[in-house]
Amino acid sequence: MTPTKKPYKGCRDFFPDEMRTRDFLFTQMRKTAELFAYEPYDGPLLEEITLYKAKSGEELINDQIYSFTDRGNREVAIRPEMTPTLARMVANIHKQTAKPIRWYAIPNLMRYEKPQRGRVREHWQYNVDIFGAPVNLGEIEILSLIIHFLSSFGATQEMFSILLNDRRVVDGVFNKLLKLDNESSYKLYKVIDKAKKVSSEKLNEMISEVITDEIRKNIFHKYLQLTNFEDLILFLEEHDLKDNCQDFIQFTNMIKSLDLVDYLVYDPTIVRGLDYYTGIVFEIFDKHPDNNRAIAGGGAYANLLQIFNENPLAGVGFGLGDVTLKDFLETHQLLGNFEKPSFDFALYCTDESNQLAAFELGAKLRELNIKTEIHLGQIKFNKIIKTAENKGYKKIGIIELKDGNIQVQLKDLVNRVNGDAQITKPETIVNFLNQG
Amino acid sequence: MTPTKKPYKGCRDFFPDEMRTRDFLFTQMRKTAELFAYEPYDGPLLEEITLYKAKSGEELINDQIYSFTDRGNREVAIRPEMTPTLARMVANIHKQTAKPIRWYAIPNLMRYEKPQRGRVREHWQYNVDIFGAPVNLGEIEILSLIIHFLSSFGATQEMFSILLNDRRVVDGVFNKLLKLDNESSYKLYKVIDKAKKVSSEKLNEMISEVITDEIRKNIFHKYLQLTNFEDLILFLEEHDLKDNCQDFIQFTNMIKSLDLVDYLVYDPTIVRGLDYYTGIVFEIFDKHPDNNRAIAGGGAYANLLQIFNENPLAGVGFGLGDVTLKDFLETHQLLGNFEKPSFDFALYCTDESNQLAAFELGAKLRELNIKTEIHLGQIKFNKIIKTAENKGYKKIGIIELKDGNIQVQLKDLVNRVNGDAQITKPETIVNFLNQG
Repeated sequence: MTPTKKPYKGCRDFFPDEMRTRDFLFTQMRKTAELFAYEPYDGPLLEEITLYKAKSGEELINDQIYSFTDRGNREVAIRPEMTPTLARMVANIHKQTAKPIRWYAIPNLMRYEKPQRGRVREHWQYNVDIFGAPVNLGEIEILSLIIHFLSSFGATQEMFSILLNDRRVVDGVFNKLLKLDNESSYKLYKVIDKAKKVSSEKLNEMISEVITDEIRKNIFHKYLQLTNFEDLILFLEEHDLKDNCQDFIQFTNMIKSLDLVDYLVYDPTIVRGLDYYTGIVFEIFDKHPDNNRAIAGGGAYANLLQIFNENPLAGVGFGLGDVTLKDFLETHQLLGNFEKPSFDFALYCTDESNQLAAFELGAKLRELNIKTEIHLGQIKFNKIIKTAENKGYKKIGIIELKDGNIQVQLKDLVNRVNGDAQITKPETIVNFLNQG
Repeated sequence: MTPTKKPYKGCRDFFPDEMRTRDFLFTQMRKTAELFAYEPYDGPLLEEITLYKAKSGEELINDQIYSFTDRGNREVAIRPEMTPTLARMVANIHKQTAKPIRWYAIPNLMRYEKPQRGRVREHWQYNVDIFGAPVNLGEIEILSLIIHFLSSFGATQEMFSILLNDRRVVDGVFNKLLKLDNESSYKLYKVIDKAKKVSSEKLNEMISEVITDEIRKNIFHKYLQLTNFEDLILFLEEHDLKDNCQDFIQFTNMIKSLDLVDYLVYDPTIVRGLDYYTGIVFEIFDKHPDNNRAIAGGGAYANLLQIFNENPLAGVGFGLGDVTLKDFLETHQLLGNFEKPSFDFALYCTDESNQLAAFELGAKLRELNIKTEIHLGQIKFNKIIKTAENKGYKKIGIIELKDGNIQVQLKDLVNRVNGDAQITKPETIVNFLNQG
């Protein structure tokens, strides 16, 4: 049977132009993390499924995970997210490691998704986390890092917002104000999570299923209508919830003098993963009407190590997928053109007897860090320039016999300047490349 | 049930020091490939199993592959090698792409190995291939690239050899000289492949099982004793095999004037994957007595696209694993120390009221590409230097109030030089970092 030429469903082939794009995104990810003094880590592609059962939600395990039994009868899964691996690794070293621990990774992950725009089965995710930072300072650093990252592509506050909430606020509203039991709280969390995706009638209906008391329902509607930190603080004061939210109120005060405040928007509907986050939660939201969606999300969590029976360790982090990032950058025309490679120099021979000389010169140029393509085989003189331009070369060399000596004719295809070099003098070529 | 803190069997956790090492190896891989004008690609983690059944050997499918049935009833496998994916991708584009096609990748691969030195279940493999190059020129370029790559770490010809053979030579010996049928050829290939791993008595015994005729057995022993290209050519002449091996003889002539000849050793026992290679075959062999093993292998192949019913396309390539590379570099003490990160600068506050000023200054320094750690929270003055040195910092700043102004005290911990900067003048700090 002839195998298919297509990639496996929901997965991508990265041909060179796509791979250059991906490499560029990853380079910016690494660069930003290192600028903030975060250290790289990675874990295995497979983990035993007990790790995910201990941590992740039911939906992930039941519907979305690639799991199977290995030949040694272990139940394993391809990592669908990095956090469980991160938790396992941090549990190994946190006791003997100075705090804060600042880590980042760019793992490939697999989920059994129905492929659609922004969703694929295999994607890469930029994960950045800080552990053991003093109250609010890890939060500020992580948010600053995201803004620096997106700004490094040229994104501005006109293009994205950080929608932010705090789980302690939500918990205060649910428990102290609405006096919901656990089951109702859980239901209302689900309602909030869908608030922006449904009509206001539908939303009302869903709320009424959880809150029957009209006064409380009104209070909840007022909560849902909050759109900035000042009104939130007034709301918390009015309803005597400030004691629950001291850290968050301090956070809103601290950010006032920082640039990041311009990117932050209070959003009461942001709650994120229920069993995981315990402090601030946030989503990076694309403001463009054509791509109105979250491109990343994260928050603060206290109980990451609980599944290993370790003491709580305060953590803040986010995950940002390569597909949603690319969609965002393309929507705002922030992504350059990676169609052609960007090598420095190509060497051609019009006579195959000079091929070995080309190899030798190429070796010398590479020693000098010049990305050099040696054209293999001879080529007709009148075909050289078109061949070179098709590959995106701006400067080339043609090896030829001149007065009995092997010489290199140098051509600048953009500025139409010529030069020449002796085959034994690669520095002449480096100088030519550095000009203009 | 508490999940284990260990990684899945045969897989590795990459804590920051190990990840920095891996990043360094991958950076060198990318750099070398780009210096030779090779373009990056990648494919999916999973492929449908028909792709591997069409291409790979029985052993791989039966014993070593991670395969399972997905929720859509597709039989899939985690890629155990990159070549089938490469073949699939090249089959998609080769007709409309200028030759030669030069591609490289560094995929993670999984095989169900019994973990031991140099063998793990998940590893990364540097794959470099060229397609559609004129006869022998792709071979020379690929071999030059490998040598450049290993030399970039400081490896010399005292440390490694390239053991090289040609499948056309082996086929000539087997078919024309020994007159073996297909079945016996196959058996003798397996014998050759084990030649270096068994005693000479055992080898004799294995050979006798395939070749019964004493004269032919003697000829085969003579073949096995060849150790250089000159003797090989004489052997081919003596036994009238030169016609089979014209291209390879031309190859041995071409390399004579190139540096790569110093690294090449003729080795009659190198045969590699039976159904795949059709021309030269080679292994990079570590010469160190403590690590006497192959660290990479490759060769020339004509029929990569056959499984897609496409016309033959000449290819040459190699694969080099991250584990064997690291073993090689460590054995020869060519790997630096990646224990500590190499960030540029750390900023400390002795009074937490300056924390926001530290965030602001950090942001400015990062705009200037300075990898800056902001110490979070206040720290006692007498603890700063030890904290900084533990993390490998050579230069630090301490934010403090001086005459009512916030100032930065700069310290060079190596040269014991001090300086100071105004908080509004990050350029002063950049200058301080660029000194000494």
